[in-house]
Amino acid sequence: MPTNGNTEKVDSETLEDQGANGNSADVDSKTKDFDLAAVYVSDAQYNRNIFFDTSPQAVRLYQLYNHWGMQVLIYLFIIVDLGLAVFEEPALIPDMPIWATSIVELICLMAFTARLIHYSKVISHERFWRDPKNICIIVIISLSLIDMITYVGLKTAGHFGVRWSRLLRPLLLVNITEGRQLRRAFRSIRNALPQISYVFFLFMFSVSMFSLMALKLFGKRGLKTMEGTPYFTDYLEIVFQLYVLVTTANSPDVMMPAYNYSSFFAVFFIVYILINTYIFMSVFLAVVYNNYKKYLKEEVRQLVKAKRRKMVRAFSLLQQSGLGEEPAVSQARWKQLVCLVQPGISSAHRELLWSVSDENKNGYIGKLAFVQLPDLLNIEVITMKTRPHPLTTRFPGFYESTASRFVRRIVQHKAFVYIYDLIILVNAVFIGLDEENPFIANAEWVFLALYLLEILLKLYTWDPRAFFSRHQFWNWFDTVIVIAALIATIFNSALTSSEGYTSRQILDIVFILRVLRLVRVVDSIQRFRTIINTLIKIGPTISTFGQLILVIYYIFAMVGMELFKDKVHFFPPNSTDPHKDYCGNPLLKGTAFAKFNYCKNNFNDVVSSFILLLELTVVNQWHELAGGFTAVTHVSARIFFVIFHIVVVIIIINIFVAFILEAFFVEYTVDKSHLQTSIEKKIEELELNINLDEPGGNLVDLMETNENDLGPSAAPKDRPALMFKIASKRYKTVDGLLQKMFEADLSKEDLDEEDESPNITNPVFGSV
Amino acid sequence: MPTNGNTEKVDSETLEDQGANGNSADVDSKTKDFDLAAVYVSDAQYNRNIFFDTSPQAVRLYQLYNHWGMQVLIYLFIIVDLGLAVFEEPALIPDMPIWATSIVELICLMAFTARLIHYSKVISHERFWRDPKNICIIVIISLSLIDMITYVGLKTAGHFGVRWSRLLRPLLLVNITEGRQLRRAFRSIRNALPQISYVFFLFMFSVSMFSLMALKLFGKRGLKTMEGTPYFTDYLEIVFQLYVLVTTANSPDVMMPAYNYSSFFAVFFIVYILINTYIFMSVFLAVVYNNYKKYLKEEVRQLVKAKRRKMVRAFSLLQQSGLGEEPAVSQARWKQLVCLVQPGISSAHRELLWSVSDENKNGYIGKLAFVQLPDLLNIEVITMKTRPHPLTTRFPGFYESTASRFVRRIVQHKAFVYIYDLIILVNAVFIGLDEENPFIANAEWVFLALYLLEILLKLYTWDPRAFFSRHQFWNWFDTVIVIAALIATIFNSALTSSEGYTSRQILDIVFILRVLRLVRVVDSIQRFRTIINTLIKIGPTISTFGQLILVIYYIFAMVGMELFKDKVHFFPPNSTDPHKDYCGNPLLKGTAFAKFNYCKNNFNDVVSSFILLLELTVVNQWHELAGGFTAVTHVSARIFFVIFHIVVVIIIINIFVAFILEAFFVEYTVDKSHLQTSIEKKIEELELNINLDEPGGNLVDLMETNENDLGPSAAPKDRPALMFKIASKRYKTVDGLLQKMFEADLSKEDLDEEDESPNITNPVFGSV
Repeated sequence: MPTNGNTEKVDSETLEDQGANGNSADVDSKTKDFDLAAVYVSDAQYNRNIFFDTSPQAVRLYQLYNHWGMQVLIYLFIIVDLGLAVFEEPALIPDMPIWATSIVELICLMAFTARLIHYSKVISHERFWRDPKNICIIVIISLSLIDMITYVGLKTAGHFGVRWSRLLRPLLLVNITEGRQLRRAFRSIRNALPQISYVFFLFMFSVSMFSLMALKLFGKRGLKTMEGTPYFTDYLEIVFQLYVLVTTANSPDVMMPAYNYSSFFAVFFIVYILINTYIFMSVFLAVVYNNYKKYLKEEVRQLVKAKRRKMVRAFSLLQQSGLGEEPAVSQARWKQLVCLVQPGISSAHRELLWSVSDENKNGYIGKLAFVQLPDLLNIEVITMKTRPHPLTTRFPGFYESTASRFVRRIVQHKAFVYIYDLIILVNAVFIGLDEENPFIANAEWVFLALYLLEILLKLYTWDPRAFFSRHQFWNWFDTVIVIAALIATIFNSALTSSEGYTSRQILDIVFILRVLRLVRVVDSIQRFRTIINTLIKIGPTISTFGQLILVIYYIFAMVGMELFKDKVHFFPPNSTDPHKDYCGNPLLKGTAFAKFNYCKNNFNDVVSSFILLLELTVVNQWHELAGGFTAVTHVSARIFFVIFHIVVVIIIINIFVAFILEAFFVEYTVDKSHLQTSIEKKIEELELNINLDEPGGNLVDLMETNENDLGPSAAPKDRPALMFKIASKRYKTVDGLLQKMFEADLSKEDLDEEDESPNITNPVFGSV
Repeated sequence: MPTNGNTEKVDSETLEDQGANGNSADVDSKTKDFDLAAVYVSDAQYNRNIFFDTSPQAVRLYQLYNHWGMQVLIYLFIIVDLGLAVFEEPALIPDMPIWATSIVELICLMAFTARLIHYSKVISHERFWRDPKNICIIVIISLSLIDMITYVGLKTAGHFGVRWSRLLRPLLLVNITEGRQLRRAFRSIRNALPQISYVFFLFMFSVSMFSLMALKLFGKRGLKTMEGTPYFTDYLEIVFQLYVLVTTANSPDVMMPAYNYSSFFAVFFIVYILINTYIFMSVFLAVVYNNYKKYLKEEVRQLVKAKRRKMVRAFSLLQQSGLGEEPAVSQARWKQLVCLVQPGISSAHRELLWSVSDENKNGYIGKLAFVQLPDLLNIEVITMKTRPHPLTTRFPGFYESTASRFVRRIVQHKAFVYIYDLIILVNAVFIGLDEENPFIANAEWVFLALYLLEILLKLYTWDPRAFFSRHQFWNWFDTVIVIAALIATIFNSALTSSEGYTSRQILDIVFILRVLRLVRVVDSIQRFRTIINTLIKIGPTISTFGQLILVIYYIFAMVGMELFKDKVHFFPPNSTDPHKDYCGNPLLKGTAFAKFNYCKNNFNDVVSSFILLLELTVVNQWHELAGGFTAVTHVSARIFFVIFHIVVVIIIINIFVAFILEAFFVEYTVDKSHLQTSIEKKIEELELNINLDEPGGNLVDLMETNENDLGPSAAPKDRPALMFKIASKRYKTVDGLLQKMFEADLSKEDLDEEDESPNITNPVFGSV
């Protein structure tokens, strides 16, 4: 039994029991067994860890519960619920009556309740009430209801009310069953907190010692800051200033009075910056990174074990004796299962997976091979049908003529890419020039025509179905951008010529599209492509961080709006209001906040709040922003901003950096997994692999490696009509990337051991 | 033969040849063999890779060359040479005539030449001229001479001259034989450069695309910056502003005009910051870290191989046949060798190392055990003589009396530490209060007395020789700080009472010492101690970075001083000069540089330049600082500041962070080395280990674990008079830490293989 400090609950009921229940069912148990096995495989594939009831109705409900439509719906309701902040007081878009937002919120809450009831039908009562996630959701819904009713009551009676339950809304994102990644991220942070806090206390000790020294050194010298206030005379003020110096936001201003007094005092600040900014901040990154990695590794290890256990369950449901020495699953049963798990799978793809599993061609597979199924399903295999170009079948004489062949040969030639790169560069220069010059404006039409021509020529040369296949990111990008630019440009010139004026908005869109068109040049440089591919690959994980940031930002925005709403007002640049110079609040007179014209950085609505929080995340000038809000409220408002800095910059951003670091190292070092290799070997054995000189390959790869100028239809008859290619290193799920990240560290025993301890429960995240 | 892209030269002459020469020497070859073997061992111990001549005279010269005195001397001359910048034009301390600095520089250059001539006598002519290091030094010396002569000539003739050769001075630090670590750091950077540059070009492409978009979106809108200048109308200006935004230095100011115009434009900046500030900067760290680690690993692998080869050479010089089946070295010969290599080693320590090497007690050791010798010597073993307290021998009756035992028991008690922690806290509060209050001022004497009492009590309880042993960092720290504070306080009050005034400088020192005294509280908290110990351990490596930064800063300071000297003037805060408001340069009127009163941040002398460069490294406001210098010169001066940012912040600081990350991971994960374990085992076997309740142990460790209240002299007779302890995880050399860092990755074969390829030469660093 593994010592597991992360998953908090020990679950006494084992999966074995569930399997036994499944086996002891009635006559039509075969279909049910298949259904249940399919659910196990699907759960293993997507790393769901829900201990659903194994009764046929519950299984069917569970399948419905996991349906993508239901999941999309629940996210939609959460987005609507979170989006209500736009209309609620203090509103970005006002004039929405309270009853309207309340009704929308009520509908959302009802949806969440329905989802929860659905969930309660799927798992046993006992499990439902033991899971902190569910309790959390119930508490959130109840508190929201109570708060809503009181607020509406207070408001209609004309009293003052605070919508405090809005803080709880983002927690729904964490506590719904689909929020696994997010829960894991929060759990990792929570586990790393003790280590981080030791370093943080040492860091604060260092800051306070330096502050004490600064007080003694500078306090009695009668120095003045640039604003004329006494310099370093109040201990708490010094601590704040030196904390800000750690974020570098007030460097070198905080040092200047002392430095102007004597050059020797620079030593104090140099030592301070060295120790607290450079060394301590690096140590924070090191500690965050190290702990995050450590706990994540343990969790992924548990996930892999749980996956294996589910597959063992599925196997025991389907196993037949008499096939070999050991219990095994026949090809027919396996096929039926795969069709249930992934109805859309092509039979060719399925046959390929079978041939990988059944290496010795026995017609049946044992437990070990069966257990690999979810990993096999998670490897994205691109199935390509080699079809001749549609024009070959329609106009064979024309398409195979010498002129046509010549055109296609040109398009396939390396120089074609180079010429278009050159065109893009020239285009960039033209964009930079003044577009009001008629020559430049007309040149735009030429460029548009050239880009369109390129796409048409490529479509002429390669099968359009291959050109627009799912994995041809840059082809899609090109086509969408060019066509959008064409439409916008035509629309714009139609508007200009007919009505005689240009719409600024449409022009903006035209400009953006034009510049985006240039981005494509990146794809023709191999080195750039690898970097960008790595970035695209870590995209899904970055999206988990996006959710994490959203949760944190939303909470801080709600608190900030309650604390600071309407304290600062923004006046448009052309306003002549006399209050404009100090953001409509006389308390701001003479502050840096007003001087820098930061009035629009306020908490008056949710969008402004988010932008302000982003500025605080970027750190620079955060003390001036905080200074503005402390000026209009109280000096203790600093606490809000310091806590935000600690949470977001010291913890969250460091985890973000840690994750990018780790993902890059994985991309640089980890090889293909064992399974990927065996699938690839099998594809090669069967001679079904897609060569790079095939239209299915990456078009640019093709152009770069295709030195022999062989046309695409040079020998179409010799090759099979169906081909495979592994979308290598691309993962369908975030877990896949994580598992790959730690695959090297997971010892073989971890994967093979028949672990009887059932304490891998639904990862819970109760304390949020 | 390993493919080695890092060490540039393949050295055809092998160490074997040198060994053969040594063996074929004349009758008194035995002494010579020992000398030569000792040099090999010493080279292996300190990872020197110099292919010295093996003739007896050369070996003796080589030993002199490696003498620590010579090395200190050469560093002293380099410091003097670098320090000349303080007196040279533009001088911090002027009035030094040109002939004086020139003579000092001449002396330094002569010292470098002498050192080089010495080196040339040690190695063969051919090798000397093939080593780029030597060529570099010769070129630096010659160019410095030429420049000096021309400059003195020009100046005496009253012409204008530039001391351009000053740029070359820091390169001496890199090219002297002792600069191994620094050369390695530079080499790692150079090897990582291609990878970094790909990311950098992609990053610059992204910045330029965003700039183009910004130009089209904002250029025609007629927006104004806060200073009233047109906003985002000039492409190059936009590129610069957006580059500055990546460093976050002008956030959120650069966004405000667009954001004030329309909230939608915030999206542009958010996307920009996300991609270029967060993702690209993390990718830079990832790439720098990954490449740095990769190349360093390869270099350390080569070092380990070279070390082994040297030891094989030494073995073949000393080996005797007839001792066992294989050639071996007898204990007597081994002993003689160790005494030659490390004359100061205690015989007990030597015996311990022998018993570890000769595990089977044969009286001789084979090649495999012999080769470990340098690693054994590098493990710091603390030899402790258990002696009774001096007072026991002098006044046994008094020292062993009940009262005396009681006092000692109190001092050893946990509560004693807690009481003093409390005193320190109270002291901290008193320091924070106003020291002009007579009560507070007198309290200081009480605290001083308490601290003195603590030290005296500890000296009374433990043997003073153990208390002040080399590894008792905190004891030394305490004593020095308390005594210094005592002297300074007495001096200060003597001054006050006799002359009636206080010297500000002495008071400053008193204050600093008082606050430093509080730092000791850190040592009583276990968690803090581990973090601080890790930081202390990576100290030596940080010092390599210190040198790296010094080289880079010095070069930039010299260039900066030539470009910007005397463009900006500093006026003391109490000056009434009318030019004060714009730093004495009318071109600065109205600039942020003058407004923020940054006049003292200038390139007018070497110290100011270094402080300014540090401010630029911290990044905040660097664009305003750069703006000041572009205002007084030309807009192209920005290039200087951008290059500085790329070199120092993007490359050097990232390597620094990478190194701290790696060192922390090593501390967290790597266990003791195999050899350390076997030494520890041997110590335990021999029952010579120092228990924690011994005075030799860390005093605080002792107090925390000593629950049984056993006095230090409770059973002094039962224990041996000599004890050992491994200063675990502490490394004598930086290479030791590095080797440990990569030990896990270096496969066993790497260490054991008998590699005959001799291409591990002196790591050269020719291209600087």
